Amino acid sequence: MNPLYIGALDIGGTKMAATVAGVQGPLARVTQPTAKTGSPRAVGEQAVALVQAACAQAGVEYRLIDTVGVSSCGPFAQIDGMLGLAAPNISGSFAGRADLPNDWGVIPLEQVLRERFGTVAIENDCVAALMAERTFGAVRDEPDCVYATWSTGIGFGLCVDGRLLHGKHGNAGHAGHMLMDIQSGALCGCGNRGDLEALTSGRSIGNDLSMSAPDLFAAARNGVPAAHDAAVQAARWFGRALYNIAVTLDTRRFVIGGSVWLHHGAWLAPIVRQEIDTRLPALTQGVSIVPAALGTLVADIGALCLTMPPDWLPKWRDAEPWHALAALAEASPPS
Amino acid sequence: MNPLYIGALDIGGTKMAATVAGVQGPLARVTQPTAKTGSPRAVGEQAVALVQAACAQAGVEYRLIDTVGVSSCGPFAQIDGMLGLAAPNISGSFAGRADLPNDWGVIPLEQVLRERFGTVAIENDCVAALMAERTFGAVRDEPDCVYATWSTGIGFGLCVDGRLLHGKHGNAGHAGHMLMDIQSGALCGCGNRGDLEALTSGRSIGNDLSMSAPDLFAAARNGVPAAHDAAVQAARWFGRALYNIAVTLDTRRFVIGGSVWLHHGAWLAPIVRQEIDTRLPALTQGVSIVPAALGTLVADIGALCLTMPPDWLPKWRDAEPWHALAALAEASPPS
Repeated sequence: MNPLYIGALDIGGTKMAATVAGVQGPLARVTQPTAKTGSPRAVGEQAVALVQAACAQAGVEYRLIDTVGVSSCGPFAQIDGMLGLAAPNISGSFAGRADLPNDWGVIPLEQVLRERFGTVAIENDCVAALMAERTFGAVRDEPDCVYATWSTGIGFGLCVDGRLLHGKHGNAGHAGHMLMDIQSGALCGCGNRGDLEALTSGRSIGNDLSMSAPDLFAAARNGVPAAHDAAVQAARWFGRALYNIAVTLDTRRFVIGGSVWLHHGAWLAPIVRQEIDTRLPALTQGVSIVPAALGTLVADIGALCLTMPPDWLPKWRDAEPWHALAALAEASPPS
Repeated sequence: MNPLYIGALDIGGTKMAATVAGVQGPLARVTQPTAKTGSPRAVGEQAVALVQAACAQAGVEYRLIDTVGVSSCGPFAQIDGMLGLAAPNISGSFAGRADLPNDWGVIPLEQVLRERFGTVAIENDCVAALMAERTFGAVRDEPDCVYATWSTGIGFGLCVDGRLLHGKHGNAGHAGHMLMDIQSGALCGCGNRGDLEALTSGRSIGNDLSMSAPDLFAAARNGVPAAHDAAVQAARWFGRALYNIAVTLDTRRFVIGGSVWLHHGAWLAPIVRQEIDTRLPALTQGVSIVPAALGTLVADIGALCLTMPPDWLPKWRDAEPWHALAALAEASPPS
């Protein structure tokens, strides 16, 4: 039997959001800073509690929620045959982050959620975003498409032949760590030099000029030469990465989100396109780039899509209630 | 009803091979130089005639063959809703090849084959090779695996979550044209500079030293410094490309074939491995590299696998009749 209500979680390195939705649309969304102390079960337990808090805010009986979809930062790892988080921005034992107040390794996310919920679907946040854009957004009915986020980090969700790709541990799409310029000194958080994220991400793009990414892009658009050059160069690397993915997967359509693209995509797109259009026409002809349609809450919507009953879809497509999610997000105080 | 016999074609830029097989194994294999003159239908018509010649050699009634699998060089393109070849080493209108005696564009391969055969399955040669290695070779039962050929060119067949990837026109796996070193002057046949094929393929690796690839690798193994450096550098680029694919697809196992790897893989493997093992353990831990098990006829075997009746598989796995294909290949005169 279809559920009356479903829960959705968006788990990031900084904050976590829980949404409760019914056939008419999202009913409540609550957020909290992601747990970083206590036992490694803390993140999963916080997620369960946050779904309960969202139910309280929505006036939905918590016991009716047996189904949750989860959009989470990664990478993932297997732990006791279930999916765990090996996220360097949450667990202290990865990547030597001295600023994290824990020594966690792999976090048992799926296990803790399954203790409470009967149906649990967990995807990388970019895979969830692609799911959202395929269900309600810019790439409906497109079997060969890739979601890319250009934001603090760089990530991808991949769809080939109409199927989302997962890989051995659900980590397909980590092409932000693709090597682009081995001679570059640009350092990624993962330790790579010259990977895509080191060359283009919001976290690193302004490093050489000691500017934040927003300041750098603002200066670039105001014609400050060094900032302009840095932004153009980043867009070229980003375009080359899309080209690399297009020849690897024979992609037809890229849908791009993330804060950098949301604010500067119209200006950056021709530079990105040039790197695709000037190479290997047998593969690149007809490749298109479109902006993400679902905005900053795309991963939350994706988490909802992961377990949404199919008979809700026509109603949601008709009423577009995901716009309400943005309003809920602005209204809700941290619980 | 299952066919009694199936045909298989391996279409390359230089030669074409047709095989006829039954439940006990391959029965005959005939080869010819690939047609390059006449109408654009010539390649497809030659393929049909070559299946007939293989039947004659095998003593199989030609009218019994209604099913063919095809392993072909690419790239592919759509023509009248069916798959065609846009191969720069066959059709003269691509890539400005003045040495080809035709002005063909896209060759109507599927259309011509379907005029004669009821069941036609066409795959890129590396996808067919992966099919063979998954069915009878080194990656049986492995859902997340990639076949790579390191030969005159560089190509890939991709499998994620237990499914072969095709993409919008069946061209997934053209990662030989992935950009690796944008500053490099090394020129690929496709026009790219510094893509994987330009940096590592048998066609290009010896260019700087004016040596053929076999001579270069022989000199490298005899300790000639310039040749040794060139071979090591190529192996590093190849390893970085495998790393890039591993983080994109979350691959567990790479199976490598092609003449370079068949002859020098044992020596090159540690250099390649190093480029994977030293990066992003969350994605690369447990990634393995194994040599292709099916040798130089892997694409022919793959073409057979594409349409092989499932009840033949246990018999073929038991008797391993593909070894007979090598003997047939040596024995058969060009028809």
